[in-house]
Amino acid sequence: MTTTYTSHVFPLETMDVPGGTETVLRGGRHLFPLLPQAFAGVRRVGVLGWGPQGRAQALNLRDSLAGTDIQVAVGLRPGSASAADARTQGFTEEDGTLGDWLAVAADSDLVVLLIADAALAAHHEEIFAVLKPGAVIGLSHGFLLGHLRVTGGEFPPGHGVIAVCPKGMGDSVRRLYRQGEEINGAGINSSFAVQADPDGRATDLALGWSVALGSPYTFRTTLDSEYRSDIVGERAILLGAVHGIVESLYTRCRLAGDDPVTAYERSCENITGPIARTISHRGLRAVRENLDPAGRDVFDRAYTATYGPAREIIAEIYDEVADGTELRSVILAERRLGNRPMSAIGGSPMWSVSDRAHARRAEHDVPVDPFTAGVFVATMTAQIDEFAERGHPWSEIVNESVIEAVDSLLPYMHARNVAFMVDNCSRTARLGTRRWGPRFQAAFEQIAYPAAELPADEALLTAFDTHPAHEALSAAAKLRPSVDISVA
Amino acid sequence: MTTTYTSHVFPLETMDVPGGTETVLRGGRHLFPLLPQAFAGVRRVGVLGWGPQGRAQALNLRDSLAGTDIQVAVGLRPGSASAADARTQGFTEEDGTLGDWLAVAADSDLVVLLIADAALAAHHEEIFAVLKPGAVIGLSHGFLLGHLRVTGGEFPPGHGVIAVCPKGMGDSVRRLYRQGEEINGAGINSSFAVQADPDGRATDLALGWSVALGSPYTFRTTLDSEYRSDIVGERAILLGAVHGIVESLYTRCRLAGDDPVTAYERSCENITGPIARTISHRGLRAVRENLDPAGRDVFDRAYTATYGPAREIIAEIYDEVADGTELRSVILAERRLGNRPMSAIGGSPMWSVSDRAHARRAEHDVPVDPFTAGVFVATMTAQIDEFAERGHPWSEIVNESVIEAVDSLLPYMHARNVAFMVDNCSRTARLGTRRWGPRFQAAFEQIAYPAAELPADEALLTAFDTHPAHEALSAAAKLRPSVDISVA
Repeated sequence: MTTTYTSHVFPLETMDVPGGTETVLRGGRHLFPLLPQAFAGVRRVGVLGWGPQGRAQALNLRDSLAGTDIQVAVGLRPGSASAADARTQGFTEEDGTLGDWLAVAADSDLVVLLIADAALAAHHEEIFAVLKPGAVIGLSHGFLLGHLRVTGGEFPPGHGVIAVCPKGMGDSVRRLYRQGEEINGAGINSSFAVQADPDGRATDLALGWSVALGSPYTFRTTLDSEYRSDIVGERAILLGAVHGIVESLYTRCRLAGDDPVTAYERSCENITGPIARTISHRGLRAVRENLDPAGRDVFDRAYTATYGPAREIIAEIYDEVADGTELRSVILAERRLGNRPMSAIGGSPMWSVSDRAHARRAEHDVPVDPFTAGVFVATMTAQIDEFAERGHPWSEIVNESVIEAVDSLLPYMHARNVAFMVDNCSRTARLGTRRWGPRFQAAFEQIAYPAAELPADEALLTAFDTHPAHEALSAAAKLRPSVDISVA
Repeated sequence: MTTTYTSHVFPLETMDVPGGTETVLRGGRHLFPLLPQAFAGVRRVGVLGWGPQGRAQALNLRDSLAGTDIQVAVGLRPGSASAADARTQGFTEEDGTLGDWLAVAADSDLVVLLIADAALAAHHEEIFAVLKPGAVIGLSHGFLLGHLRVTGGEFPPGHGVIAVCPKGMGDSVRRLYRQGEEINGAGINSSFAVQADPDGRATDLALGWSVALGSPYTFRTTLDSEYRSDIVGERAILLGAVHGIVESLYTRCRLAGDDPVTAYERSCENITGPIARTISHRGLRAVRENLDPAGRDVFDRAYTATYGPAREIIAEIYDEVADGTELRSVILAERRLGNRPMSAIGGSPMWSVSDRAHARRAEHDVPVDPFTAGVFVATMTAQIDEFAERGHPWSEIVNESVIEAVDSLLPYMHARNVAFMVDNCSRTARLGTRRWGPRFQAAFEQIAYPAAELPADEALLTAFDTHPAHEALSAAAKLRPSVDISVA
C-alpha cells in the first residue's frame, strides 16, 4: 500500500518510518482558512447519528467551519432519543441543522455516516438511495466495508467514498479539540482513506475534514487496512486485551496476598496511570529503562512469558476479522441481543474497588509495577508485530496499538472505569471486548504467569530493545498533541 | 423432527419423553446374531482413521462381527504414525485388514469416516471419488455436513449417508464395550441419523452399526441436529464450560483462603467426583436434595446467579455453530496452527495441584460443595434449556448435556486431568474448548459469583424443580449402561 499522497490545498510533510517514509499532514487551527478550498463543492455536511463519535464530529466540524458558508446539519432517526441533546448543542429543526436522517442525507454534499454499526448494516441501502448526484459518502471506520463484503453488497457507483478515522473515542475527539482552542494542535490523530474518487476531490476533502476535527496529524491508509486494524485493535490492546490483563493481574495480586486496593493499584491503576503516562511521553522502551535492575528482571520475565500467548490470540483475532467471521459474529449478536443491554463488565470484584483506589490517589504516587509493565508492554508489542507482519503502515500501527491507548482510551479508564471506556465505544467494539477480553485473561493466568517464574527469553528481549516500533513511535511523537487530554 | 422409526431387523421400544415419545433401540450382545441381517449387502467395513474414535470403533466392530463373513479393515494415510498401533491390535496388511485409506475406501461397502476433521475437510472429495457404486458413507458426527455447508459442497449422489454418533469419547466407547463382555449392556449411547437412503437399507445398517459398537440405547436424530448439539455441547457443558467452571471456582476458593489442595477438592474434584456420580445415579435434582438447608441456600444462590450468564454464552455459541461461523473459525485455526501443537491447558496453577489432590483421595471422601454444585447444575440446565428451545429431541438433549458428561467425560477428568479429557477429543472440540472455556470463566467470576451474594431467584428455582429434563433423564436412566465406566 502506498502511504504517500499529494494535496492541492494543504502543505504536507514527510515522516521517516522504518523502511521508508510516509506523507503526513500536520494539523492545527492555522489551517482552518484553507477549509473552504478543501470543501470545494460542499454546501452542506450532513452528520448522521449522535453517538459519541457523531456528536463530537458534528460539533467540531461546525466550530471549525464557522464563518464559512458551509452548513453542518445533524440527521437522526425518527423518534431518536438523541434529538434533545443535539438541540441543547444548538442543532435545531428551525434553522435546518437538525432533521430526519434520510432528509439530511438527501440534501447534503458530504454525508458522514456515524450511526450505530447495526443501524448502518440495516439501513445503508436506504441512505444510498436518497443521495444526490455527486454527494460524497464519509465514514469513520471500515465497518461498512466489512459488512458489504460479508453480505455481498457494494458502495453506490458514481459517489466519492472517503474515510477519516480518528484514533480515539468520540469524547476525546471533542475534548482535545476544545483544549486546542487554548493551545493550537490538540486533538486526536486520524487516518484517511479514499475508497472511490470519481471527480478528484476526495483526498483534499478528506484532509479538510480531518483538519476540521482537530487531528494533530493525518496519515494515509486504505479502508480495508483501516477496517482490519481498527476492529483487531479494539479487540486486542485498546480494549479487549487491556480488560483481560487488568482482571488477571488483579487476581494474581490478590492471590499473592495484596489487599484489594493495593492489588488494584498494582494492576489496573498501574496501567492507566504511570505506565500509560510513561509510554505517552517517553515511548515503550522507557517503561523498562526506568526500572531498577531487580525490577527489570521481573519485567523481562513477565514480558517474555506474555509475548507468545498474546501474539497467538492477536493472530487469531486478525484471521477472524480479515475473514469476516468476526463481523458475522457481531451481526448474530445484534440479532440475539436486540435492544437488550449487553452483559455488564463493570461489576466485577476488581471494579468494585476502583472508587477506593481513586480516593487514595492524592495520598501517594503509585510506582510502576514491573510485572504489570512487562505484561502490558508485551501485549502491546505483540499487536505491533502482528500488524507489521500483515503489512499495515507504521503510522496506523503505532496509532492503533500505542497512541490511541495511552492518549485517548486509558485516560478514560483512569478517570472512571473499564465499563465507561468500553461502553462509550461502538457496539462492535463493546461486543468484541466481551468476546476476546476473557481469552487474554485465561491465557495469561493459565499459561503466561506460570511461565514468568522461568528465566527470561533473551532473544525476545533483544527483539524488543531493537524494535523498529521505537523509531516509528518517536517520529509520531514529534507530531503528538500539544497537550495531554484532560478528562473531567 | 420425527424421532420415531421402524426396523426390519431389531425389536424397538418406545420411551416416554416430555411432550411425547421417542423410538429407541435397547442394545446388547444378545442382538449380535442379528448383525449379518442389519449389515445385509456389506461384505467389508472400512474404518478410515485411527484416532481415539477410529480405534475404538474399528475394534468394537471387528469384535462384534467376529464369526460373520463381514471383514473390518482400517484405512490410514500413507506414512501414518498410527499404523504400528493398528498392527499391534491385529489389523495387518497381510490379511487385508490394514491399508491405504483410499484403497480401503474403494473396496468397502460401508466407509466409516473417522479421520481428523481437518483431514476430512481437505480430503473428502478424494474419498468420495473412489467409492464403489452403492457404498454407504458412515459418519460419527456432523462436522462434514457443517463443512460442506460452509464451503458449498455436497455428499455424492447415489450413496447412502448415515451417522452413528456415540455420546462419549473414543476411549470410553472401547472401555465400556470391553466391560460389556462381563456384564451385557455396557457401552456408550449413540444417536443415529439417515441423511441419504437411496436403497432403503440405511436405518437398519445404522442400527446394526450402533449395536455393534455396544450402545446401550440408540435414538434417532438428523445429521444437522446432531451437528449443532455436538459442536455446541462440547463447547459448553461437556468440555469448554466445565473447564471454565473449575478454573473460576478454584480461584474463588483460593481467594477465600483455601489452601491449594482444598481449593482443588472444592472445585474440580467436586465436579468430577461426587457431583458427577450423584447426577449419573440419581439425576440432577438429587444434587440439591442431598444438601442440608444451609447448603441448599448456597446452592440456590449460586444456581440462580449462574444460570443467566451461562445461558447467554450458550445461546451465543449456538448461534455461531448454527450459522457456520464457528466452523469457519476452526478452519482458520487449522490453517494458522498447521501442525503446531495447540496451547497447553493442563499447566495452570490449578492443574499443578491435581496430583496432590488425587493422592489424598484414599484418606477421605470429598463432600459435595454446594456452591460448586449450584454453578455446575445451573450451567448444565442452561444448556438443556437452550437445546430444548432450539427443538432438539429429548434423548439428544439429555445425552449431549448430562449423560455424556457424567458417564464418559468427567470420569476421565477425574482419573487424569482436563488436558487428558479435552485433548483426547477431536481437534474441533479441542479448539472450541480453548475458545469458549475462558468466556464462562470470566462471566462467572465477574458477573455470576458477585451476584451469588444476593438472595436466590425463586422463579428460576421453581423452573429447575419442575423441569421436564428430570423426566427425560429418568427415562434415559432406565436404559443406562449396566455398569459404571472403569477408567484405569
